Amino acid sequence: MKKEIPYKIYLEEREMPKQWYNVRADMKKKPAPLLSPATLAPITLEELSHVFCKELAKQELDDTTPYFDIPEEIRNFYRMYRPSPLVRAYCLEEKLETPAHIYYKFEGNNTSGSHKLNSAIAQAYYAKKQGLKGVTTETGAGQWGTALSMACAYLGLDCQVYMVKCSYEQKPFRREVMRTYGANVTPSPSMNTEVGRRINKEFPGTTGSLGCAISEAVEAAMGQEGYRYVLGSVLNQVLLHQSVIGLEAKAALDKYHIKADTIIGCAGGGSNLGGLISPFVGQMIKGEADYEIIAVEPASCPSLTRGVYAYDYCDTGKVCPLAKMYTLGSGFIPSASHAGGLRYHGMSSTVSELYHQGMVKARSVKQTEVFQAAQMFAKVEGILPAPESSHAIRAAIDEALRCKETGEEKTIVFGLTGTGYFDMVAYQKFNDGEMSDYMPSHEELKKALDARPKVNL
Amino acid sequence: MKKEIPYKIYLEEREMPKQWYNVRADMKKKPAPLLSPATLAPITLEELSHVFCKELAKQELDDTTPYFDIPEEIRNFYRMYRPSPLVRAYCLEEKLETPAHIYYKFEGNNTSGSHKLNSAIAQAYYAKKQGLKGVTTETGAGQWGTALSMACAYLGLDCQVYMVKCSYEQKPFRREVMRTYGANVTPSPSMNTEVGRRINKEFPGTTGSLGCAISEAVEAAMGQEGYRYVLGSVLNQVLLHQSVIGLEAKAALDKYHIKADTIIGCAGGGSNLGGLISPFVGQMIKGEADYEIIAVEPASCPSLTRGVYAYDYCDTGKVCPLAKMYTLGSGFIPSASHAGGLRYHGMSSTVSELYHQGMVKARSVKQTEVFQAAQMFAKVEGILPAPESSHAIRAAIDEALRCKETGEEKTIVFGLTGTGYFDMVAYQKFNDGEMSDYMPSHEELKKALDARPKVNL
Repeated sequence: MKKEIPYKIYLEEREMPKQWYNVRADMKKKPAPLLSPATLAPITLEELSHVFCKELAKQELDDTTPYFDIPEEIRNFYRMYRPSPLVRAYCLEEKLETPAHIYYKFEGNNTSGSHKLNSAIAQAYYAKKQGLKGVTTETGAGQWGTALSMACAYLGLDCQVYMVKCSYEQKPFRREVMRTYGANVTPSPSMNTEVGRRINKEFPGTTGSLGCAISEAVEAAMGQEGYRYVLGSVLNQVLLHQSVIGLEAKAALDKYHIKADTIIGCAGGGSNLGGLISPFVGQMIKGEADYEIIAVEPASCPSLTRGVYAYDYCDTGKVCPLAKMYTLGSGFIPSASHAGGLRYHGMSSTVSELYHQGMVKARSVKQTEVFQAAQMFAKVEGILPAPESSHAIRAAIDEALRCKETGEEKTIVFGLTGTGYFDMVAYQKFNDGEMSDYMPSHEELKKALDARPKVNL
Repeated sequence: MKKEIPYKIYLEEREMPKQWYNVRADMKKKPAPLLSPATLAPITLEELSHVFCKELAKQELDDTTPYFDIPEEIRNFYRMYRPSPLVRAYCLEEKLETPAHIYYKFEGNNTSGSHKLNSAIAQAYYAKKQGLKGVTTETGAGQWGTALSMACAYLGLDCQVYMVKCSYEQKPFRREVMRTYGANVTPSPSMNTEVGRRINKEFPGTTGSLGCAISEAVEAAMGQEGYRYVLGSVLNQVLLHQSVIGLEAKAALDKYHIKADTIIGCAGGGSNLGGLISPFVGQMIKGEADYEIIAVEPASCPSLTRGVYAYDYCDTGKVCPLAKMYTLGSGFIPSASHAGGLRYHGMSSTVSELYHQGMVKARSVKQTEVFQAAQMFAKVEGILPAPESSHAIRAAIDEALRCKETGEEKTIVFGLTGTGYFDMVAYQKFNDGEMSDYMPSHEELKKALDARPKVNL
């Protein structure tokens, strides 16, 4: 079979983006501002600089500057694992017998196993530049913690990770990757922090939660001279750094004169989806092109498809700023699905606003269907995907099958955010036919939403 | 810093090799022939075709044809994960403050996690082409079994893997990757085969060995209509397929007019080293260029540096053909080092002969030094390497440090065969300071060597 488009489109190093793109600058109606948890008023740069280092706080609040230069040190780091390939899924197309053309932007070819490294190196860089000693963060399954450990090891920055205790004990391999990179990994709740000690006392034997780990990481940052807290998703700064995904994808498509019709990404906090779609949304806003954009979320944690658009806390501990976003309520505890990276009660305020404006569609998919798509993809495309990424695969396959019925020669681009090498417990459950498809009931969602803070601006 | 050479050299798809290179065809003194285990005479194509499928048996015995066309179907599969990048280790050079230029050919960017896939797809393809139903194999830690599962899933071929029982139980994740790819994974010794039942009866509760798993896989292939046995290293056919590594590496170097001085690879059975060095050795034989080639083996299993060059069985069960090779004796049981892929008593007969002729040097390194190198590499180059591959990293770092002393601007190329994502138990031992550096005693080696079969041709 003759292929005019290569299996993998790699940009040359000189074609790699030199600037990140801040889609908020071009949005006519901007995402609502973050609120201070203390005053419930829009948070100031000064206030935010206590939590994040100065440059990142600036990026967080800036919704007018469209482009930010990527510092040369970060570009050098990117060169170690980027550009990531835009892959033509010839084998998947053949398997599905679809007239659709399917492409995926593969972000898993690095030791962190996902796109998280794109923002981890940026956040670590600005912390280092400000003369900080180190950073603190939380991690659930460990993808973000791993990425941050790698970035900190590269720059010689101390890295303290609060890892949810049940993951720390049940998923020792990611923990060991972090330790190999020199990170200090503490099971949370720990006895290092006030909040950790309180929770350990209140709930003896608890195996922790993400909400608790965030609170510990924030407290640890505040309590140590020369430390700041960093976060791997949801934030505007993270979407800015992750725009490198979309910019590369767009450059690769342009290089071969390919026009995407549908762009698909999995969505938990929105870091990958927001980054992937940024430049395409920019074109839509300017009337230069039109795309169908689909955010795919798990049926077990459906913030876009079943949540409300309102101000809410970003963390369960209510120590971080509030954001206006699609949310299930910061008290919502998602079921123990295997896509840990998508178990978040809210959605990045930028993605939320784009969804609210109708520029982004959303759909939710069930876990078992997701793993069926993952397995098919692994067999024909040779990459074992992360459960999170497989949500996008599911939707892409569904779209391609629809094209088979209609005969449309659509071009579908989806984000393959990472690999599933550390998720084999989930695959085992799937292989053994023991995977569940839990969805929250109407009553359960209502209860969590009713418990939201009453904030109206 | 200005870089005239990119961080990663990727060939274009049209520059990828269309033929494998069979270095034996150009060797003036050829490797000694395989012997039939039944007659101890050179094995015939007819005899070998009972074990391997016909085309592979031909490749195994052919030491006169220099080039074999890579079938288009295999080239299409290669395009999914190849060309693999030749990476300039700028960050490692900087860290070491060496004048040396360091490059590595990175074979780990695929779900099997190593170079094994290069031969797995070829062996599965020829089996399929011959109309076989499936293949059987053994696997220790699971790298080869994973690669074969992926290749078989792609081609729709049944795949039966006998996995050493202790790995099956202690390393469930690779097992689940294989199952996800549809392979039938059986803990060995099993009750499926005569030899398995015998061993289970003789040694109740045994956790198995590679030698036993080989014997079971061979028996299973022989006992099923339409099945053949396949093997991931040592064999000539494997080195032939793996020549794609060296051919790509050489093409990438040539593209940027880079002349390698030293080429380094880890060596267990010789599949990676043999493939990497093939085209360079070809040049040396023809007097076109000169290289220093270094095989790096573990001090715990030092076949080249402490073995003898003689005929020996390739497997502990003595059912496979005999090969003339550097060997520690087929009864040698390597200590439980963490580089499972290098725990083999012998060395590919081609690599052995090249070593015997002085074209390849060898050195052995200790486990702890290997992991120190692995950790340094992971931190500065962003890739967590497999323990096997890290043997080559250790030697490359040692060479680069020597250059620092002498001021030589040597160009060092080494093979980075894979990633360590499924080897975190080993890293944990290292992180906890509990790694041992066992080396076999003189008496232990002598005992195993004395037990060799007395064969002289």
